[in-house]
Amino acid sequence: MSTGLNFLVAALRCEIDALEELARTSDLVGDIGRLVHALQRERGLSNGVLASGGHQFAGRREEQVLECLACEQAVRAGFDALAVDRRRHTANGSRLFSRIAWVLPGLDALPALRLRIGGLQLDPAQATAAFIKLVAGLLAVVFEAADGATDPDISRRLVALFNFMQGKEFAGQERACGAAAFGAGRSELARQQQWLQLIASQEASFHTFAEFASATLAARWRASQSPAQLAELERLRRVACSAPAGALLDTGLSASWFDGCSQRIDAMQAIEAELAAELRLLSQARIAQARAELEAHERLLARWAQQPPTASADFFFGSADRSAPLATGDTATPAYGRHLERSILQLVQEQAHRLQSMGDELETVRVALNERKLVERAKGLLMAHRRLSEDDAHKMLRQTAMNQKRRLVEVAESVLAMADFLPKDAAP
Amino acid sequence: MSTGLNFLVAALRCEIDALEELARTSDLVGDIGRLVHALQRERGLSNGVLASGGHQFAGRREEQVLECLACEQAVRAGFDALAVDRRRHTANGSRLFSRIAWVLPGLDALPALRLRIGGLQLDPAQATAAFIKLVAGLLAVVFEAADGATDPDISRRLVALFNFMQGKEFAGQERACGAAAFGAGRSELARQQQWLQLIASQEASFHTFAEFASATLAARWRASQSPAQLAELERLRRVACSAPAGALLDTGLSASWFDGCSQRIDAMQAIEAELAAELRLLSQARIAQARAELEAHERLLARWAQQPPTASADFFFGSADRSAPLATGDTATPAYGRHLERSILQLVQEQAHRLQSMGDELETVRVALNERKLVERAKGLLMAHRRLSEDDAHKMLRQTAMNQKRRLVEVAESVLAMADFLPKDAAP
Repeated sequence: MSTGLNFLVAALRCEIDALEELARTSDLVGDIGRLVHALQRERGLSNGVLASGGHQFAGRREEQVLECLACEQAVRAGFDALAVDRRRHTANGSRLFSRIAWVLPGLDALPALRLRIGGLQLDPAQATAAFIKLVAGLLAVVFEAADGATDPDISRRLVALFNFMQGKEFAGQERACGAAAFGAGRSELARQQQWLQLIASQEASFHTFAEFASATLAARWRASQSPAQLAELERLRRVACSAPAGALLDTGLSASWFDGCSQRIDAMQAIEAELAAELRLLSQARIAQARAELEAHERLLARWAQQPPTASADFFFGSADRSAPLATGDTATPAYGRHLERSILQLVQEQAHRLQSMGDELETVRVALNERKLVERAKGLLMAHRRLSEDDAHKMLRQTAMNQKRRLVEVAESVLAMADFLPKDAAP
Repeated sequence: MSTGLNFLVAALRCEIDALEELARTSDLVGDIGRLVHALQRERGLSNGVLASGGHQFAGRREEQVLECLACEQAVRAGFDALAVDRRRHTANGSRLFSRIAWVLPGLDALPALRLRIGGLQLDPAQATAAFIKLVAGLLAVVFEAADGATDPDISRRLVALFNFMQGKEFAGQERACGAAAFGAGRSELARQQQWLQLIASQEASFHTFAEFASATLAARWRASQSPAQLAELERLRRVACSAPAGALLDTGLSASWFDGCSQRIDAMQAIEAELAAELRLLSQARIAQARAELEAHERLLARWAQQPPTASADFFFGSADRSAPLATGDTATPAYGRHLERSILQLVQEQAHRLQSMGDELETVRVALNERKLVERAKGLLMAHRRLSEDDAHKMLRQTAMNQKRRLVEVAESVLAMADFLPKDAAP
C-alpha cells in the first residue's frame, strides 16, 4: 500500500520524465532549425538557377543540397527517436506525430522536386511555393513541441524560438519577394501588398519572440541588427513598396537587396543557434534540479520505511491548515514521528503550490500559441466554406487585416465568430 | 527509416494509450464517488453520535465505518494501479499524483479521527470540518482527472461528473448546516449566510453539470427531483433563512429537514452512479473506435511495405492543397502507387483536422475547469497576503460575491486583477 510520500516521489518522477522528454524534443527543434536554414538557402539558390536558365548558381546549389541532406538525416533520426519512445507522449504525442506524418512525405518528395529544378521544369514561383510549404510543415512540428511543453520556463523559450524561426522564414520570403520585384524591374500592386504583409508578419513574430525570450537573447537580437543595415533595408523597402503600380524599379538594386537580406538572415541563424543552446542548458538545469529534489524525497521515504510513524488525526485534520489542532492531549505520536510527519506534509503542500503556479504560468505562455491556433482555425473554416486553398485562405485573412488595419488574430476571431452564419457546406 | 504512415500509426497508438489511461482514471473516479458518498453518511452519523452524547446512531455509525473501509480499499488500490503505470502520466501526472499525495495522509488519519469521535472528544463542528477537508481532497483528485483528459467528449463527461459530485457535497454540507440550525432552535446570522452560500454554490455546480452532461442524464437529474420534495425543501430553507437573527426555529422541523435532504442526496447518488457508468461506456466506445482505425492504418502500412511507391513531387508539393500539380508530364509513379499515396495523404489530413477540432473542443470544456482554478488562485493569494486560513479565504470570497451579487469566479478575477496592488508579503 502506498503512502502519500510514495506519490510525492511518483509526481516528481513524472516531472523528470516530462523534462527529459522536453530536452529530447528541444534537441530536435535545434536540428529542425538547421534544416530550415539550409532549405531557405537552397530555395534562394534554386531561384537563382531557375531565373538564370541554369547558367548561374548551379554549383553552389549542388553543395547546398548536400548540406540539406546532412541536416535532413539528423531530423529524420530525431523523428525516429521520438517514435521509439512513444509511450511517453500521451500528452500531445498524437498531435506531434500527426505533424511529423504530414511533413515526412514532403521530405520524401524533395529528390523529385530537385530533379525538376535541375531540369528547369519549374518557374521560380513554383519552386519557392514548394519550399515554403515544406518549411511551414517543419515549423508546425516545432509549434506542437512548444505547445506540448509542461514546464513554463522551457515553454516560454520554445515559444520564443518558434516565433524567431517563423520571423526568420518571413524574412526569407521577403528576400525572395523583393528579389523578384527588383529583378522584374517593375512595380506591381499584388506583390507590394504581399511584401507589406510579409513585413507585418515578420515584425509580429519578432515582437512575440522578444516578449518570451530571455533578456540576454532579446538584447543580442537587438544588437545583432546594425542601424546602417536596417536603414538600407528600410530604404529599399520604401522605394519598392511606395512606387505607384507599373512604375519602373532599378534592377541594379536587386543584388544589393539580396545581399543585405542574406546578411541579416545569417545573423538570425547565429541568434537561433544561441536560442537552441540556451534551451538545452535550461532543460539540463531543470532536470538536475528535479533529480536533486527526488533524491531528497527518497531519503525521507527511506527514513519513513525504517520507522513509520502512527498516523495521528492532527497530522492531516489539525495542523494542515493554520487552524488549531483538534485536541491538545494527543500523545499517540512520538516527537520524532511528528517532526517527520510535518516535514512531509510541508513537502506535499510546497509541491502542490509549485505545480499550481507552474500551471498558471503555462496558461499565460499558451496565450501566444492560442493566437496562432485561432488563425489556423479561421483558415480551415474559410477553406471548407469558400472552397479556398490554404494559401488563398491565408491571403484573404491577411488582406482583410491590412484593409481594416487590424491584427491578423483579430480578423481570425471575427471569422470564427461568424462561423454560425456561414452556409454548411458538404466538403468534398 | 520511418515513413509518414509510421507516424500516422504512432499518433493513433498515442491516442489509444491516452484513452486507455483515461478509462482507468474514470474507473477510479467512480470509486472515489462511492467513497465520498460513504464518508458523507459517516459524517452525518458521527454528528448524530456527538450531538446525542453517544446515545444515538452508535450502531449505525459502526456499520457505516465498515462500508467506508471497503470503499477506501478500492480507492487505494486504484491509486496504486496509477502509480505502477506512471510512465503514461507525463501529461498531468505530476499534478494528479500530488493531489493523491495530499489526500492519502487524510485517509491514514481517519482511524485516529474515528477514535476521537467514538470517545466524544470532538464537537460536531470539528468532526464536520475534518470530513469536509477529506472530501475536498478526494474531489481535488477528480478535478485533476478531468483536467488531464485529452478527449473532449470524455472530458465533458468528467467535468459534468466532477460538478455533480461537488454539488452533492454542497448539498451534504447544507443538510448538516440546516440540521444544526433547526437543532439549535434559534436563528443566527452567520449560519444563515453560510447556508445561502451553500445553496448558491450547489446551484452553480448543478448548472455546470447540466451544461456538460449528456441530454439523457441531465433529464434524469431533473426528473429525479420530485416537485413535492423540492417544494418542501424550499419551504424549510425559506423559514430558516428569512427568520430575523435570534428568532426561534421549530426544533421539530429538524428530523423532517434531515430526512428530506437525505432522500435527495440518495437520489443524487443514483444519478452519480449512472454518470460513472456512462463515462465507462463512452471510454470503451472511443477505444474500440480508435483501435478499428489503427487496424485499417496498419493494413495500409503492410501494403505500403510490400510495394513502396516512388515519391513524386506531386504527392506533397502538387496535389496536397487544391492547387494545380507542378507538372502534368509526371509518369514516374504508377497509377497504383499514386492511388495509395493519395489515400495516405488524405488520411494524414483527416487525422490532422480531427486532432485540431478535438483540441479546440477541449479548450471549450476547459473554460469550466479554469473558472475553478481562478477561484483557487484567488484563495491562495488571499491566504498569502492577508495570512488567512484556506477556509477563511474561501468565506471571504463567497461573502464578497454575496454582498456584491456577483458570481464567485468574477470576484476571484477581481482579486487576481488587484494582485499587483497587494503588498508583497514574505510568507512564512
